[in-house]
Amino acid sequence: MKTSIVRVELSGRSYDIYIASGAFDLAVSAAKDRLSRRNPVAFVSEENIWGKFVNFDNPDFENCAKIIVENGEGAKCFRNLERICRELAQRNVDRSGAVFAVGGGVVGDLAGFSAASYMRGIDFYQVPTTLLAMVDSSVGGKTGINIPEGKNLVGAFHQPKAVFIDTSFLKTLPAREFSAGMAEVIKYGLLGDKSFFGFLENLKEPLSASHPEIGNVIAHCCKMKAKIVSNDERETSKDGGRALLNLGHTFAHAIENTAGYGHYLHGEAVGLGMLLAARMSEKLGMLSEEETSRIRRILEIYDLPVKFREPISSDLLIEAGRRDKKAMSGKSRYVLMNGIGTSVVVPGIEESLAREIFETAMG
Amino acid sequence: MKTSIVRVELSGRSYDIYIASGAFDLAVSAAKDRLSRRNPVAFVSEENIWGKFVNFDNPDFENCAKIIVENGEGAKCFRNLERICRELAQRNVDRSGAVFAVGGGVVGDLAGFSAASYMRGIDFYQVPTTLLAMVDSSVGGKTGINIPEGKNLVGAFHQPKAVFIDTSFLKTLPAREFSAGMAEVIKYGLLGDKSFFGFLENLKEPLSASHPEIGNVIAHCCKMKAKIVSNDERETSKDGGRALLNLGHTFAHAIENTAGYGHYLHGEAVGLGMLLAARMSEKLGMLSEEETSRIRRILEIYDLPVKFREPISSDLLIEAGRRDKKAMSGKSRYVLMNGIGTSVVVPGIEESLAREIFETAMG
Ligand SMILES: NC(=O)c1ccc[n+]([C@@H]2O[C@H](COP(=O)([O-])OP(=O)(O)OC[C@H]3O[C@@H](n4cnc5c(N)ncnc54)[C@H](O)[C@@H]3O)[C@@H](O)[C@H]2O)c1
Ligand SMILES: NC(=O)c1ccc[n+]([C@@H]2O[C@H](COP(=O)([O-])OP(=O)(O)OC[C@H]3O[C@@H](n4cnc5c(N)ncnc54)[C@H](O)[C@@H]3O)[C@@H](O)[C@H]2O)c1
Repeated sequence: MKTSIVRVELSGRSYDIYIASGAFDLAVSAAKDRLSRRNPVAFVSEENIWGKFVNFDNPDFENCAKIIVENGEGAKCFRNLERICRELAQRNVDRSGAVFAVGGGVVGDLAGFSAASYMRGIDFYQVPTTLLAMVDSSVGGKTGINIPEGKNLVGAFHQPKAVFIDTSFLKTLPAREFSAGMAEVIKYGLLGDKSFFGFLENLKEPLSASHPEIGNVIAHCCKMKAKIVSNDERETSKDGGRALLNLGHTFAHAIENTAGYGHYLHGEAVGLGMLLAARMSEKLGMLSEEETSRIRRILEIYDLPVKFREPISSDLLIEAGRRDKKAMSGKSRYVLMNGIGTSVVVPGIEESLAREIFETAMG
Repeated sequence: MKTSIVRVELSGRSYDIYIASGAFDLAVSAAKDRLSRRNPVAFVSEENIWGKFVNFDNPDFENCAKIIVENGEGAKCFRNLERICRELAQRNVDRSGAVFAVGGGVVGDLAGFSAASYMRGIDFYQVPTTLLAMVDSSVGGKTGINIPEGKNLVGAFHQPKAVFIDTSFLKTLPAREFSAGMAEVIKYGLLGDKSFFGFLENLKEPLSASHPEIGNVIAHCCKMKAKIVSNDERETSKDGGRALLNLGHTFAHAIENTAGYGHYLHGEAVGLGMLLAARMSEKLGMLSEEETSRIRRILEIYDLPVKFREPISSDLLIEAGRRDKKAMSGKSRYVLMNGIGTSVVVPGIEESLAREIFETAMG
């Protein structure tokens, strides 16, 4: 196996991302290595993945804690956080211990926050099994859980010690989940890399688990995310940095909130959100009509929605947008595009413009 | 009011501790100042304190969240963590928001961890109302909650933006709680400042809420803790640094665990633990008999226990010690004294010696 290694530079907290078909073996080695130094290891995964697609059923790991949570976004909750922390304590995991998160973004966020909080922070490793987790959630140290009041409202910045991306996991990923991950891949092109976007557009075959370029594409996305995270670890930069990763997200959150979670996968909402961001950018003279069409076309290639599946009230969408951000006197900040490959934070967008843009997705 | 200011140097996270009778007014100003910049403010306190000894009943704060938890160590739990995070969200506290923790170590630890986790970290301020919280828990950024498996097993390092120590709160503190705080004051002398210990010994009147030196003593303790924390923020130094603050704590944890929490206040257990650490140090030729007597004497001045109140099985104490730390092949690390004012971490202490020392506290 040829392994790409992407480094996330964060002074004392730097780490490597290993990308290869078969990179799972490296995760196994890392876990064994810790055990051989008598440092406890625990695995966190979910019922739809563990034993089905992933198995640390090595005799070496027989006595390790394996904490399996339920499938779905609902697993990112206080109840599971408490359960994981208590189970780590019952298994005598101490400060030298480590948590391996094996699954999609749900498991990564939950297990990462558990590792951040248990004993005020122990080591953790990401073993992402979805495309979205490989290119986005497993890199950068954002961890967290949901509360009824909102998604990801409770959490921590806690960088992994390493990320092991085994692209062969993608083979079993449902097509719809793959597409949702592709929205985030496309996002990297739109927000900061015109030629990467062109590369994606010009692929003869659309990307898939078995596409020869899949490893390179994931590595490229990780490289872009690593660079952004290195420069703005805690999202404190106001007009750029990590905030640019939210391209399409203001629209997406409003859509997810209004349609009800689960109706659109997050990536699907982000895809549509990016198209709406393109239309808003076009309206403001920042993007050409042709660029907006190119964005629409690539979303269609990956079966991502380019309009609402069912009508959604624009009043409710605007209402949701207000709740999402501290909208100052009815004006909001959006990440928009100054041409494909260049994103910028634009403050002071009027609600009336947002409404007009939402309405383009109705028909 | 004459205000002492102690700075905690932590590069990007440095902050000041304000110590004065009346320093509460500074907390009020800080909260008002944030509100005037339209940044939300929330108060966390407990039923035994809020409205009784402390009141932010200023009309300015009318619309601020005031989250009051129950009295006692049990309040440091997941249920309250979740409740606080949800209430912050319901009150639309955003990233610009801040939590003011008003109370003893229980409130400070719980509110601090809530602030650390809510939106992956918002600002927080400590307004300690017990002597223990003033000299110890409000400074240094350790926050956390308990789980049935152990105390403080879940938490975060999250430094406050400022600490406001109003010594006049001590006037209503029960004598027993004051004494428990004194154990931590004495600890600073024992672990790192011989002349401070001498100063405490030679006071004509024992310290009390109305003693003219109380502000200076608290400021001195904060200065010592600030220095230790600056050099070892996350307790990663193995043989010194923050670990030295655990003088007496290995014994204390075993006593608290065995006698049942609440039977001894934490400070009481620490006081007795320091005496046992002195006896162990003496046994190892590190401390003179006369020094041990001086330590016993000052504990007695503050009505701190110098033997078990009721017999405790030494088997159970040893058992508890084993659970407390990863005792490697029956040997443990203890913080001991190389003379009053000089503490060191001593590894490899045999269980048999620990047992012998525990037995000195039986009679
Ligand atoms: N931390 C971050 O920076 C960050 C960034 C983006 C998203 N997120 C979070 O990520 C989560 C979404 O992540 P996700 O899309 O991976 O969701 P997910 O973890 O729920 O996985 C999606 C589905 O795919 C299944 N699955 C996972 N791996 C599989 C495999 N190899 N084969 C077959 N099925 C598999 C899962 O069981 C699940 O049903 C959200 O909670 C979101 O908030 C976090
Ligand atoms: N974070 C740290 O670094 C650190 C360090 C040491 C201890 N701690 C934690 O601190 C906690 C103990 O703190 P504590 O001793 O302050 O306990 P506490 O908060 O329970 O307060 C002790 C009692 O004093 C009462 N009280 C508080 N202020 C009062 C006042 N001004 N007048 C009258 N009564 C008042 C309280 O209601 C309570 O009953 C423990 O949970 C311990 O784990 C944390």
